[in-house]
Amino acid sequence: MNKLTVKRIIIGKPLKTSALGEQKLNKLKALAILSSDALSSVAYGTEQILLVLSAVGFLAYWYSIPIAIGVLILLTALMLSYRQIIYAYPQGGGAYVVSKNNLGENAGLIAGGSLLVDYILTVAVSVSAGTDAITSAFPSLYQYNVILAIMMVILITILNLRGVTESASILAYPVYLFVLTLFILIGVGIWKVLNGEVPTELHTPMGTTVPGLSIFLLLKAFSSGCSALTGVEAISNAVPNFKEPSAKNAVKTLTMMGLFLAVLFSGITFLAFWFGIAPSGEETVISQIATEVFGKNAMYYFIQVTTAIILILAANTGYAAFPLLAVNLATDKYMPRIFTVRGDRLSYSNGIVILGIASILLIIFFGGHTEKLIPLYAVGVFIPFTLSQTGMSRKWMKEKPEGWKGKLAINLIGACITFTVLVILFTTKFFQVWPVLLFLPFVVFGFHKINKHYHNVAEQLRVSKKHSAIKMEGNIVILPVAGITKVVENSLAYAETVGDVVIAVYVAFDRESERRMEEKWKEFRPDIRLVTIHSHYRSLIRPLARFVDTIEEKAAEQKHNVTVIIPQFITKKNWHNFLHNQSSLLIKTHLLYKRNVIVTTVPYHLRK
Amino acid sequence: MNKLTVKRIIIGKPLKTSALGEQKLNKLKALAILSSDALSSVAYGTEQILLVLSAVGFLAYWYSIPIAIGVLILLTALMLSYRQIIYAYPQGGGAYVVSKNNLGENAGLIAGGSLLVDYILTVAVSVSAGTDAITSAFPSLYQYNVILAIMMVILITILNLRGVTESASILAYPVYLFVLTLFILIGVGIWKVLNGEVPTELHTPMGTTVPGLSIFLLLKAFSSGCSALTGVEAISNAVPNFKEPSAKNAVKTLTMMGLFLAVLFSGITFLAFWFGIAPSGEETVISQIATEVFGKNAMYYFIQVTTAIILILAANTGYAAFPLLAVNLATDKYMPRIFTVRGDRLSYSNGIVILGIASILLIIFFGGHTEKLIPLYAVGVFIPFTLSQTGMSRKWMKEKPEGWKGKLAINLIGACITFTVLVILFTTKFFQVWPVLLFLPFVVFGFHKINKHYHNVAEQLRVSKKHSAIKMEGNIVILPVAGITKVVENSLAYAETVGDVVIAVYVAFDRESERRMEEKWKEFRPDIRLVTIHSHYRSLIRPLARFVDTIEEKAAEQKHNVTVIIPQFITKKNWHNFLHNQSSLLIKTHLLYKRNVIVTTVPYHLRK
Repeated sequence: MNKLTVKRIIIGKPLKTSALGEQKLNKLKALAILSSDALSSVAYGTEQILLVLSAVGFLAYWYSIPIAIGVLILLTALMLSYRQIIYAYPQGGGAYVVSKNNLGENAGLIAGGSLLVDYILTVAVSVSAGTDAITSAFPSLYQYNVILAIMMVILITILNLRGVTESASILAYPVYLFVLTLFILIGVGIWKVLNGEVPTELHTPMGTTVPGLSIFLLLKAFSSGCSALTGVEAISNAVPNFKEPSAKNAVKTLTMMGLFLAVLFSGITFLAFWFGIAPSGEETVISQIATEVFGKNAMYYFIQVTTAIILILAANTGYAAFPLLAVNLATDKYMPRIFTVRGDRLSYSNGIVILGIASILLIIFFGGHTEKLIPLYAVGVFIPFTLSQTGMSRKWMKEKPEGWKGKLAINLIGACITFTVLVILFTTKFFQVWPVLLFLPFVVFGFHKINKHYHNVAEQLRVSKKHSAIKMEGNIVILPVAGITKVVENSLAYAETVGDVVIAVYVAFDRESERRMEEKWKEFRPDIRLVTIHSHYRSLIRPLARFVDTIEEKAAEQKHNVTVIIPQFITKKNWHNFLHNQSSLLIKTHLLYKRNVIVTTVPYHLRK
Repeated sequence: MNKLTVKRIIIGKPLKTSALGEQKLNKLKALAILSSDALSSVAYGTEQILLVLSAVGFLAYWYSIPIAIGVLILLTALMLSYRQIIYAYPQGGGAYVVSKNNLGENAGLIAGGSLLVDYILTVAVSVSAGTDAITSAFPSLYQYNVILAIMMVILITILNLRGVTESASILAYPVYLFVLTLFILIGVGIWKVLNGEVPTELHTPMGTTVPGLSIFLLLKAFSSGCSALTGVEAISNAVPNFKEPSAKNAVKTLTMMGLFLAVLFSGITFLAFWFGIAPSGEETVISQIATEVFGKNAMYYFIQVTTAIILILAANTGYAAFPLLAVNLATDKYMPRIFTVRGDRLSYSNGIVILGIASILLIIFFGGHTEKLIPLYAVGVFIPFTLSQTGMSRKWMKEKPEGWKGKLAINLIGACITFTVLVILFTTKFFQVWPVLLFLPFVVFGFHKINKHYHNVAEQLRVSKKHSAIKMEGNIVILPVAGITKVVENSLAYAETVGDVVIAVYVAFDRESERRMEEKWKEFRPDIRLVTIHSHYRSLIRPLARFVDTIEEKAAEQKHNVTVIIPQFITKKNWHNFLHNQSSLLIKTHLLYKRNVIVTTVPYHLRK
């Protein structure tokens, strides 16, 4: 089985460029893959709020209700703002494009850079969380935590390389199952509450005074709750992946996601409050609610399983949004050009693979313990939230289209709220989020360096009418040899057809082999000049490079090119390559990169 | 700072081949790096015995004394046998060379293969154990377990790349400190025992009947104790690294190591017995003895620290023995040739780097939990023990030199004991050691495949007097172009000097760009033929390869070579390479490997 077949089986048959239309997403599938990150956060959002409140005690838990209302207001503001962003920028790119066009280059790069890093964090964090769920269920697997997480990332990467629609078809089921089971949980729970089956003594009534509760703590609880909103921006980055009319379909999907998120988040928070549930290290809030509502029956376990799956699938949102954002940045020459190339299955495969590799590295680096990155990743999303709202406000003020005042109001309110949350995040969790201040400038600096390089190259390559390439009069060929074999015979034959002068070079590590080679050469091809060089440091490259330099000097005087011919074994099987000193590759690279020498590779195919 | 400087700082200045003599080890340094594996096992050998006995209970602990005597007898037999091996095979290679020369190819490959795998396990296991010791002391580091272990492997790898003597100079101190502190511990402990400061009620007297004790359990305890002997073979592999007279020096070092090992192991076992120490999950046996002898004072902590360090340094024995064993196998063409090349610092750097990589992969795969590999690694060393003793016995019987009967007796006894231990290991711990039966045949099969390939190649490359290379009459040059730039101008100039016919090829992804290119080319170089090809699947390589095939067919008829010229950007800075589509590299590789086409790379150096 050769490499091509393996690739075919894993990735699938290549698709023609003209099949691009079929690779677009309908609303149902788009909702599944683009909202899994946002929806998965209801699995821990309420818990995050209660965890902060638990520092004061049971009495404070009723505050989760006003805090949840605050989060819902923020969600509404974000939904309305992103709706406007999608209509205004249907080519995708979300916060990056909005900020760049309205607030300037650097604002755009900050928004884009922080989202890119964020999507890598999303993948690492959600896969690690999913792996933890699996190894808590099967403790004997615990020692394979890291390798399991890596395998999971590889699996998701492969699914995404198979193309957007195919991964969406597979991954849609668990997302909708999760939403459905949580709807049932909330429905049954509220039914029990309404029927008076749940004693009201379980919770402290709203409005109870709580001694020792500070504003700081409430703000911290609110900012923790905001972690439930990460991921809502993903749709705005991926608009071009929607079926036509793409902007309209994207907005409908966004609205659907917002409604799901609102119902699930407020439902869970309400039930947690009513049942008087306290966060605990051993059992998640959702698990506790499910136990209260259903007892530990089949339905309970079903909820647990779908929750674990959605946590892993949150990673998939990163895979949907990262490559498209990278395309936007690469088209503007801030990122390497390879990100703009579509792979065999018409997905932006380079972006997908790099996202996979980056998150695997993060997982290895943290040994699978990536929980500490969660606050980082909330900050990473509120920066582009703020920038994009501000950018939209600026746009309305400048362009003043019909009804601009209403639109401006929406984005301005959005900007204020998200900026406030950002400030709260920085003040309440500074010791967890400071790395953002370190790596964001670094990323933006990188974008600028790349951009500058591309502009420099374009300038250098432009063909000018005046100067044309210098006409050369001949070609000196240098052939390094390691012994007298058929390969040398073969390369010599070619050297003679292209070179006016042919010189063979032998690098000897000791005097004995030097003498022997000279003798044998005299018998083999006395008509071709052989130069032997002695190497003290067992290096082939350095003495050879020095020799080439000398020849080149002379050649330049006589307007001759210098070509070095490197024979290369082509082995029958791939693994055989490891059995041959890859010195020809090293020589080639060195001469090409350091010496401005033309290098010709003559293949010699081994028959077995 | 360029790559070369970085390498210089990390690895050090290159050394001349003639400096090889200075890189040899004196006995003091050799003992330190080659015995750290064996000596470190006294840190857990006694514990392993007691752990098995604890299944029956406290009464059985006195059996540790006769078991330790058994281990000492085995140690003596091994010492005497390896002494004879070193004198007989001073070129190193130990069990591999002995078994191959006297028992045949496969026996040698089994011995060599199992030792190679064993050294990889040594590195992974000992570094993981050291990391565990560190993270138990600083629990906040626990989540960085894997990355810490990897960094430690990288550090030891770099030390070894700097050369044998340099790593030995640095690593000798902790080894001797460990030996010294344990000597003090044992000395003071025995002093206290002799002075009657330790009540005799702490242990059950020797000879106490133990109900429920089976032969099987005693054998299991014995085989566990034998894990203290892993590593004693290392010196026999590394004889060439010793200062002249190398065999004599190696034997003296071996004797020193044997004495240290015997004194430390019996001392610890005796004190553990006398103080009535029981193995516990929380505290090591050595730590318990140290507490009894010194109390928890500075000396106690000093012992703890040196023990942790020696556990990590055990890895270094792997670094000393693996590369030399690999050289032996590679010289006989069972392993890739690169293992025989000396690096800048005259160490066999490829072996060192590959050992490092392999153990890092093991650490990642097991997420840092490599304890379960320990029994595997005892088996991995008793297989070559048995084979080498048997081989030596065979040698004496065949050659019958002076005094051969005494020599034969020593090796025969050695062979019997080590074989017995091997059988015990397999019967008592089958469920932990079965993977050996799986991977050893696989490794030996690999050796044979490699050997066969090298023989095949040598045959194919031999120059025959009769057939010489076919004289070619001309050269057709194909130049793939992506646009009209200075790079193309440059490459065309060269193409015209070496080719009789020059054809430019353009691969278009859409009709529009195809048309535009044709127009522009007509203006640029109407004298050179341009062929445009349309690609449906956005692939450059496949359409290009098809085109080359067509040309090649015609060229063969007219006895012409086909050369493809690939222009290559040479960027000013290394990282710039990532910014250019590496399509030229892909095209080059494909044409060279699949199509038997000569490929010429014309560099174009970017100025900024």
